[in-house]
Parts: sequence; structure tokens; C-alpha cells
Amino acid sequence: MGLIVQKFGGTSVADADRIRNVARIITDTYRKGNRVVAVLSAQGDTTDDLIAKAAEINPNASKREMDMLLSTGEQISCSLCAMAIEALGCPVVSLTGWQAGVQTDSHCGNARIKRIQADRVRRELDKKAIVIVTGFQGINKYDDVTTLGRGGSDTSAVALAAVLQADLCQIYTDVDGVYTADPRYVTGARKLDEITFDEMLELATLGAQVLHNRSVEMAKRYNVNLEVISSFTGNPGTKVKEVVKTMEKTHISGVAKDKDTARIALVGLADEPGIAFKVFSLLARRGINVDIILQSIGRDATKDISFTVHKGDLAAARAALEENRELFHFDHMDVNDNVAKVSIVGAGMINNPGVAARMFEALYSANINIRMISTSEIKVSVLVDQQEADRAVQAIHDRFFNEVKD
Amino acid sequence: MGLIVQKFGGTSVADADRIRNVARIITDTYRKGNRVVAVLSAQGDTTDDLIAKAAEINPNASKREMDMLLSTGEQISCSLCAMAIEALGCPVVSLTGWQAGVQTDSHCGNARIKRIQADRVRRELDKKAIVIVTGFQGINKYDDVTTLGRGGSDTSAVALAAVLQADLCQIYTDVDGVYTADPRYVTGARKLDEITFDEMLELATLGAQVLHNRSVEMAKRYNVNLEVISSFTGNPGTKVKEVVKTMEKTHISGVAKDKDTARIALVGLADEPGIAFKVFSLLARRGINVDIILQSIGRDATKDISFTVHKGDLAAARAALEENRELFHFDHMDVNDNVAKVSIVGAGMINNPGVAARMFEALYSANINIRMISTSEIKVSVLVDQQEADRAVQAIHDRFFNEVKD
Repeated sequence: MGLIVQKFGGTSVADADRIRNVARIITDTYRKGNRVVAVLSAQGDTTDDLIAKAAEINPNASKREMDMLLSTGEQISCSLCAMAIEALGCPVVSLTGWQAGVQTDSHCGNARIKRIQADRVRRELDKKAIVIVTGFQGINKYDDVTTLGRGGSDTSAVALAAVLQADLCQIYTDVDGVYTADPRYVTGARKLDEITFDEMLELATLGAQVLHNRSVEMAKRYNVNLEVISSFTGNPGTKVKEVVKTMEKTHISGVAKDKDTARIALVGLADEPGIAFKVFSLLARRGINVDIILQSIGRDATKDISFTVHKGDLAAARAALEENRELFHFDHMDVNDNVAKVSIVGAGMINNPGVAARMFEALYSANINIRMISTSEIKVSVLVDQQEADRAVQAIHDRFFNEVKD
Repeated sequence: MGLIVQKFGGTSVADADRIRNVARIITDTYRKGNRVVAVLSAQGDTTDDLIAKAAEINPNASKREMDMLLSTGEQISCSLCAMAIEALGCPVVSLTGWQAGVQTDSHCGNARIKRIQADRVRRELDKKAIVIVTGFQGINKYDDVTTLGRGGSDTSAVALAAVLQADLCQIYTDVDGVYTADPRYVTGARKLDEITFDEMLELATLGAQVLHNRSVEMAKRYNVNLEVISSFTGNPGTKVKEVVKTMEKTHISGVAKDKDTARIALVGLADEPGIAFKVFSLLARRGINVDIILQSIGRDATKDISFTVHKGDLAAARAALEENRELFHFDHMDVNDNVAKVSIVGAGMINNPGVAARMFEALYSANINIRMISTSEIKVSVLVDQQEADRAVQAIHDRFFNEVKD
């Protein structure tokens, strides 16, 4: 008994049968005495179809008009889902982003939620209605429709759960939950019953594409209890919480890989104060996120700085650095986009100094060379050659999870 | 130079090429120094496709959710058209019904516009933007999306033209303008340069499906200059105005037929006061519109009442009358749905008493039997057998238009 926000992604509402399935999940929850707010994405390929329509007419269409176009996708899935719920005999109302009071900034195509004035949602809940809300969208202060960008529907759901002080926010998806590693690639990967926000954040950022990190960040900030759960199997999913009650026997919760990374090395930089500041503030001004950074002393009073960027930012980063070659006085730039980042994540790590060593040992045993290392309180990442990535994940996973099982 | 509202129907925006064509018409108008507001319908079959999607999920979906679904159609066509205009280099913004301030009553699926708070539209026009507005839709006082029912986009355009005090409201369609008769069936039918609101109203009601009568009524009430014009040929269309400057040589402006009519005769009614009142107030309460009414004295102190209704209302009318057979004391009911109404319309008619006689003579010459007659100040309608309808229209049209030409 409580208030539950349920989010369903595009594959979960892809056709009439799946919409009926989602309607059943929602009405089952409602009939158990819960108040239910459901947040839906657009159906399957709708968004891609709309983008193709736009591209045929104007490949350089403004983001404002793109958002006007794309926001229809969720309006369609939500009204259809409401009709399916009507057919099951429950009171229901579908609301667009603006009707649900989702107010964003003005960055069309990648807007951020500023606040949700949820009066209408609350009023409908008080009238015992199931409320279906379009994910991924809101309006800015000019009343223009905006979309939230990647992971937007997850963010909509978590934001609504925060504002409504929901007891639980369930993210229904096409996987069973959060795994210790990607089960498509790693034998022995197993589902976690629970995971902390911080661990989930690291996993999300590191390429476990279950939840977008924006939504996890928000859930952590407002302490929204999340659950990642499959809309197909009906099995219990993974709970994401501030503190996990039953600590896992292992100290790490998962192994993740990220192939969308590239390494840049600036070799032979002048060894003068502020050079790192200049390099990274330049990249920041260009909107380029830098991940692992490594600085080492070079020869002849020079130093080398290596760092990784998202592959999509590589060209921009190279250009920015080349333009400022005079300023930075580096000897040459070395770029490698044939790398992958492999990471272990676990809140238990900080109190167990042997964890990193155990990871390195697993890689050594598998004869995999480590190119860079980065650590945080709950994470250890290493950069390896891309063709070694899957083997590296398996080796690490075996070491941490399968040995424990023995 | 002025403010022009242009409305484009579903066939005019059916695909990318046609949307580009519409964008050209709009930008041409804009580049001549006019301010332009364009009102668009949904693309071609979009509305039917959405209705089919809904029917698959719930054939008895609420009108509220149907409107939520259907309103996406115009949002898609409008944003795509705005993108096409962007590609042509003109400033543009697309607005949904609620963004444009279109406020309606709460009859989802068949809402009426109550007012338009056009501040946003005016603000965009002041910023020199072309404004594209979704036709067919608005919001009610609860902020729910509503659609306007048949002819809704025409009504949206005329209402905006009225509120903005536009100099002209152009209704772009797939025909060249208003004809003296349907050119698909009547040889010698010709396009009218001008026509009065009242004539257009009679023609619209009588089945010339160029403009919906709701929009013509509104144009007459607010004195909005209308023009019916083709979005394909670029030829001058037909102007619809309060007073037509150049009177046509003939006294009538058109001949129309309506096959969606049926005749009901109540035979042997008690000849007592108030019987006609009782019959027609009953039908009015059931929402059934009655058109031609004819009352005649029958035999033995009884009377007969014949009248026509829309074919779609026939079953309901029969049922209502049968239920009240005791009350009305009629002997029997005679129904004929194998009839058609043929009408001539013309503001010049009232001062030319010979017009009706000339129409009857044309029918007599063609050996067509007249079953009922109804006249108004600017219209004469006759009921004929359905299989005679096309021949009747041609005979009348020949008499009024081709003889003048000679």
C-alpha cells in the first residue's frame, strides 16, 4: 500500500500486446491498493521514425521544432496505454509533460527538469485515478515543449517519484535487473538483489546501460527507492538504495566495460606550473569530459599527460589541442582509440585495500596488459586494449564472483 | 501587405513534397510583406491510422483519451512544416492548440471554440515569425486536450482570423474554389469568383464539401474575408464575403445535391392542436435535425406530416416515433431513404420570383418527379428519387448557367 511510480521504456510499449501487458502490470499494482503513476517512453521505433521524417524535410531542423515533433511519441503511447487500462476497468488519465507540470530549462533536445508542479497529478490521484505521464518531456518558461535527451524517461520517473514522495520508483525494462557483469558476454554473471546509489552510478557511467546516470543521481539526491525490473518476466528485480541492508559476501557489486573511450597522450610538455590546468580548462570550455588522467615525468625537464575522453569527443579534443600547440609546447600527441575501460565497482571496496590488487592479479594471470589505472572510493578502472576487454571482464568476474561461490 | 491566415488540409500536407510545397506558399506570402499565420490539419491518413491503433487496443476508448491521441497528428504536420520553412530561411514557430491559446468547451471529440487568447501568437508575429498553428484542437478549462470534430481545422483558421482581425483567411484545399455545381458530375460547372457567406452556408449545408458550415457561420458572424483556393494549382480561388461586388448575371450561384437524406411520412395523424410541436420537439430532444417539413390534410379529419432527416439519424428517428405511436395516434409510418435533395442557392433569388419556377420547369422538361419542395430566401430545395439526382442537377445547371452563356 503506497504510492508507486512505474516507468516503462520503448520496448515495453512497442505494440498493442505489450501495451496491454503494461496496462496489466499497472492495474495489478493499483488493485493491490496502491496509488500508481506510470511514466512511459515512446513506442519502439516511433522516435526514430519521426527523426527520419524530419531529416527528409530538413536535416538541420531547429531543436525547438524537433522537440515539438518528438514529444508526440510519448503522447501516443500514453493515450494508448490509458485506453488499455480503461478496457481493464480502472479509472485512468494520461497527461503530457506540460499537463503534469514538468518544467525544464530551455535546452531543447537536452533539457533539465527544474521543478514539477504536480498539483494536477495529485488531484487525479486523490480522485483514485491511475495517472499516466509522458516521459522524456516538459515545457520551458516560454511554454515551449522540450525533451530531456538520453535517459530522459528514467529521469522523468525519478523526478515525479521525488516530488510526490513515492514509496518506490520501479524502472521496468527488458532486462531482469542489474547484473555483476553484462550477462550477454560474461558467463557466471548474476543478478544483484540490491545495490547502492553510488555503485549504480559508477556502473551506469561505466557502460552498464540499465539506468541512465542522470536518473540515478537524482534518485540519490532525493533518496528515491529505485527498483530495476523486467516488464516481461515478472521476476523480482534489483533494488537501488542509499544503504544496502544485506551486504554481499564479495566486496564488489559488478564489473563493467566501456568501449567508447579513447586515450590521448601529450608527450614532452614543458614542465612549468599550471600546464595541466590550461589543458583541462581548455577542454572543459569546449564541453569535453575528461575521464582518467595520468601525469608522468618525461625526459629533459618535460612531462607527459595522458587522459581518456569519450570517443565521440576525440576529434574535437584533438583539434582543440592542435590549435593550442604553441601555448602548451608539447612535443607530439599520441592518440589511441583501440582501448577499452574495464572497471570494478563496490561500496565495500574502500575498507578492503586488497581489492584493487586482486583485480590486477586477475588481469596478470590472464596475461592482459594494463595501460592506465584510475581509482575512486568505490571503483577501480583500468584501460586495456580493446580486443582484450571481454576477456578482462570475464577474468575479473571469475576472480571476484566465481571463487566466492566455491 | 496585411495579416493573412492560411489553412491547409490533410491532403495538402500528406507527404514531404507537399509539406515543402505548403512551406513555399507560406514563405511566398510572407516575403511579399505579409504577416502569416498558417493552420494545418494532420497529414493525409494520420488520423485514420491513429484511430486504427486505438481500436486495436480499446474500441470503446474514452473521447478524452482519443483526443489526447488524435491531437498528435497536427502537432506532427505543424512541426514538420515549420522545419520546411526553416529550410527556406524564414523565421517560424509552430504552436499547438494550447500554446496558441485555443480554449474550447469540454465536449471531447466535438468541442466548440469558446475563446482564443492569442497573446503568444501576437508576440510571435511581432517578432516577425511565421506562426504555424495546429488546427482541429484546443484545451478545455481543465487543461485537457480537445478536438473540434468535423471541419475543425477550417473553424480553427477562421476563429484565429477573427481574433487576430486578419485581412484575409485563405482555405487551401484540393479543389480550385467553389463551383456552380460539383464539376465531377456536372458538365459545364464553373468556378465562382465570389460568393456571399449565406450562399456558401447553404451550399456547405447542402453537400458541397468545400468548406464546413461551422467555419462559414463563424466567418459570417465575425465578418472574416474567406478565400477557397487550391494548394496545387496556384490559381485564384473563390472569395467568400458579406456582400459580393460584382453580381453574377445569373440569380443563383450554385446547384448542390445531398444524397444523405431520408424522408419519413407520418400518415393519418389525429388532427389536433400541437401535434407538429410534439413530433418535432421529441426529435429535437433526441438530437435529430429535421430538414424539409411538409404538412398536408389527410382524409377523415386526419393529417399527414412528411419530413426529411439525415440518413445517419433515420434509425433513431424511427425508433423515437414508434415508441410514441400511442401519443401521436398516427396510422402508419412511411420511410423512403432512396431520395436525394437537390437545391439551388443564390442571394439574387429573393428579388426574382421566377427562379423557383424556372428550376421546376427544368425538372419537368427532364421528366423528373418532385416529391417535396422547400424554399428559403436564398435557396430552393426539392426532393427527388435518388437515381434521378445527377440528372436533376445537370438539367437545372444547364437551365441556369448554360443558357445564360448562349
